[in-house]
Amino acid sequence: MKVRNAAGRVIETNIGGRKCRPFAGAKKYGRATKKTASLVEALRKCGLRNGCTISFHHQLRNGDYVLNMTLEAVRELGVRNIRLAQTAMFDVHKPVIEHIKDGIVNRIEGSINGIVGDYISKNPLSYPVVLRSHGGRWAAVKKDELHIDIAVIAASSADEMGNCTGVVGKSAFGPISYSEIDAMCADHVIVVTDNVVDYPCRYQEITERYVDYVVDVDQIGDPKNIVAGSLKITEDPEKLGIARSCIDLMEAVGIIRDGMVFQSGAGGISLAAMKYLGEKMEEKDVVAACATGGLTKYIIDIYRNGRVKSLYYSQCFDVESVRFVAENMEIPADIGHYADPTSKGRTVDHLDVVVLGATEVDVGFNVNVNTHSDGRLLHGIGGHQDTASGAFLTIITVPLYRKNNPIVRERVTTLTTPGDVVDAIVTNEGIAINPRRKDLIKRVRGKIDLVHIEDLKNMAYDATGGPMELDLGEEIIGLTKWTDGTVLDIIRRVKGR
Amino acid sequence: MKVRNAAGRVIETNIGGRKCRPFAGAKKYGRATKKTASLVEALRKCGLRNGCTISFHHQLRNGDYVLNMTLEAVRELGVRNIRLAQTAMFDVHKPVIEHIKDGIVNRIEGSINGIVGDYISKNPLSYPVVLRSHGGRWAAVKKDELHIDIAVIAASSADEMGNCTGVVGKSAFGPISYSEIDAMCADHVIVVTDNVVDYPCRYQEITERYVDYVVDVDQIGDPKNIVAGSLKITEDPEKLGIARSCIDLMEAVGIIRDGMVFQSGAGGISLAAMKYLGEKMEEKDVVAACATGGLTKYIIDIYRNGRVKSLYYSQCFDVESVRFVAENMEIPADIGHYADPTSKGRTVDHLDVVVLGATEVDVGFNVNVNTHSDGRLLHGIGGHQDTASGAFLTIITVPLYRKNNPIVRERVTTLTTPGDVVDAIVTNEGIAINPRRKDLIKRVRGKIDLVHIEDLKNMAYDATGGPMELDLGEEIIGLTKWTDGTVLDIIRRVKGR
Repeated sequence: MKVRNAAGRVIETNIGGRKCRPFAGAKKYGRATKKTASLVEALRKCGLRNGCTISFHHQLRNGDYVLNMTLEAVRELGVRNIRLAQTAMFDVHKPVIEHIKDGIVNRIEGSINGIVGDYISKNPLSYPVVLRSHGGRWAAVKKDELHIDIAVIAASSADEMGNCTGVVGKSAFGPISYSEIDAMCADHVIVVTDNVVDYPCRYQEITERYVDYVVDVDQIGDPKNIVAGSLKITEDPEKLGIARSCIDLMEAVGIIRDGMVFQSGAGGISLAAMKYLGEKMEEKDVVAACATGGLTKYIIDIYRNGRVKSLYYSQCFDVESVRFVAENMEIPADIGHYADPTSKGRTVDHLDVVVLGATEVDVGFNVNVNTHSDGRLLHGIGGHQDTASGAFLTIITVPLYRKNNPIVRERVTTLTTPGDVVDAIVTNEGIAINPRRKDLIKRVRGKIDLVHIEDLKNMAYDATGGPMELDLGEEIIGLTKWTDGTVLDIIRRVKGR
Repeated sequence: MKVRNAAGRVIETNIGGRKCRPFAGAKKYGRATKKTASLVEALRKCGLRNGCTISFHHQLRNGDYVLNMTLEAVRELGVRNIRLAQTAMFDVHKPVIEHIKDGIVNRIEGSINGIVGDYISKNPLSYPVVLRSHGGRWAAVKKDELHIDIAVIAASSADEMGNCTGVVGKSAFGPISYSEIDAMCADHVIVVTDNVVDYPCRYQEITERYVDYVVDVDQIGDPKNIVAGSLKITEDPEKLGIARSCIDLMEAVGIIRDGMVFQSGAGGISLAAMKYLGEKMEEKDVVAACATGGLTKYIIDIYRNGRVKSLYYSQCFDVESVRFVAENMEIPADIGHYADPTSKGRTVDHLDVVVLGATEVDVGFNVNVNTHSDGRLLHGIGGHQDTASGAFLTIITVPLYRKNNPIVRERVTTLTTPGDVVDAIVTNEGIAINPRRKDLIKRVRGKIDLVHIEDLKNMAYDATGGPMELDLGEEIIGLTKWTDGTVLDIIRRVKGR
């Protein structure tokens, strides 16, 4: 059929079997500012209503003001039953407890650390806390398993159209990393900043294409709690010994060589291991291809010494690394690139080695990072599962016991990372390699001594008298998911607590 | 229901009304190389079959080897009826004509320049060529209106996992820009490079998460035809006069001021206009916020002189700008950021001014950039519609006539950009402002003289005797779409050609 369109041209409405819609007129798109007077107004404009899911990134860590500020605005709006989908939560988020008590928050899907976790361990929510790894969460948002109504993204600099970054500004915290998928998939996106810059913002980690509103606040966080001034390596000789053993193991496996890729962490033992690894690379005159993960002064030192060619960073843990990233923005590492299990290639799959911690490990090489042995949910999963499933050599470092609690045990209290992808447990009393990894056992033969995991457990039990039994009820606090969305474990409330 | 999952943990399969899938086991993801021996093998592995759609970017321009190379591989595989979804096509792609004749290619959705367009103008395909702007194409791929089975992405450097760039390497051509959406949405993605670098590639415009295969070839293109050594500004006094008039108009409208945003082009008049704009900014001591679009030495000069704070580039037109981009990779400008009409904010919406060319304009301020007045389809839309719909002041520069053909006319042969979004026509015989833009007419009053568009047309007709009438039949060569996917116009074959 022929029709005349809005521009006066005669067109066909069906060409070769395909329907054609006639042009209906054009106009300038325009460019109204997205700046909004307050979070309350922005949330209202985004259609906030009872039952909504609101997401946050955690890069402001224990200095974050944005999550609390947002929940205050929700309260002011009289909205209830919010589901929080933060990437992590810290002690600074203690006010969440009041919001839970008052019915403003009733569900949480995201990592919980410390105070709020402790509270929920005693007062389970109507639906359990869902714990996912960084990559698992990315995939859940991408697949709409975790649908976000409103993403609230803290930025240390943003222009009034929403282009924004975390690497510059008075509250700089490093790359935003976690929020790209929220920006892409959420129904509505609010950028919260304390530094509105001229258009266009430099270092655009989130671009205006995804942003609905920009809110200018006095402070997005407390700079002294955003990143550590500088991180200190442990001085505990036992932990230093564990760190040295990690390097001995890497050396024996033969992965300290040109082109190696390794993951750095910020824990006491991990930091020491990185320092020793740097020294070993100097000694052997080795140049690594890449270091991934959270950035610290120690990794930057290795980079500046020419011992690693490039850095993929998704977090900054100290002031020096925030400064470094602002000056070296060339290699991006959003969490999707790093660990999205549904992608065609993850950075973590290139790891030769990762050194990770644990609250407990067991004889099946299963790892718990979420709960303490008393059953309290006090930690998130972070990149634990992601890197473990990617690295050629996944090392877990633990002391045999802490106080009178055995850390190497028959069965972890909560399963976070299954033994299927854990290769070695390095303790203060020796190294155990997962019997599944015959290749590794063969490689290290004659170079280092190994211990059976059962022997480590027995030593731990002998020293402590064995684990405390928990009296678990039916009430569910939370659940841990594997990166594919399946349920690894259920965290139950300890009775009578 | 309680079940024991693969890790031996007892979990519920239904929690709070939500179904939970039990963990079924984990393994290391692994990291097999994506390097593939040849394009033939990569295409086969991607399941190439009759009727598939294959996409390409055009950043190698008239130096591109990759499109021809791919169609040779398709031929070798005996596959037919391919739909091409390139972002643009040049004379170097002349072999496409043979592939059309032999039934290997039977449809094209993408810009066509020169030889292939001329051929199709005389020999329409079974389905018309679909012409979209850069932003319109991005949206069509994103919305799956244009479904891509296999994206073939040329890169001047790539690692064996598919992280890649166009800004470094012997065949560097500037940012890849156009292909991000293809990478995200295509069923399969092949990166073709002539420079495989160590993992991880620097400047990752396309990341491994989207890439299936990497093919290492001798040459992705002929460097001397990829970008111009250096572009020359027109020396034609008439064209220089038009360029000067553009600056007079901008000045009269009052947009040459601190914080301005402008679009640069690479055409003769546009280049001259940019040079004059730079001089005017010096004279008035003005600093622009941003320049967008294709990068040239002239824009870089303005930037280096401190007259523009930042550059958004989606293309490089000369050797100097390729070098510049490699050294200044901080502001991304993929085409989605630049012009996706379905996004929440486009770079082009911040333009104070854009200077664009045309093959014809008409008294309704409609613009044709696709066909010549003889009806031949010889050009793509590029960013014409995108920038016109975004800029506060959209200027079209044209001579009144070319040889004996009136360029300002009653009715354009083909409608590319509707008069709804065109603000001024600047010619060698005066400036006409679209009567819809009363605000502009008011602003320039007393500052510059205006001419009625009808008068410009009459002058053009007087000088040439008016336009040649085309004897159009029913056969359709192509169609032009507005950025929202509606049909602006149909390009019909001239009878008896």
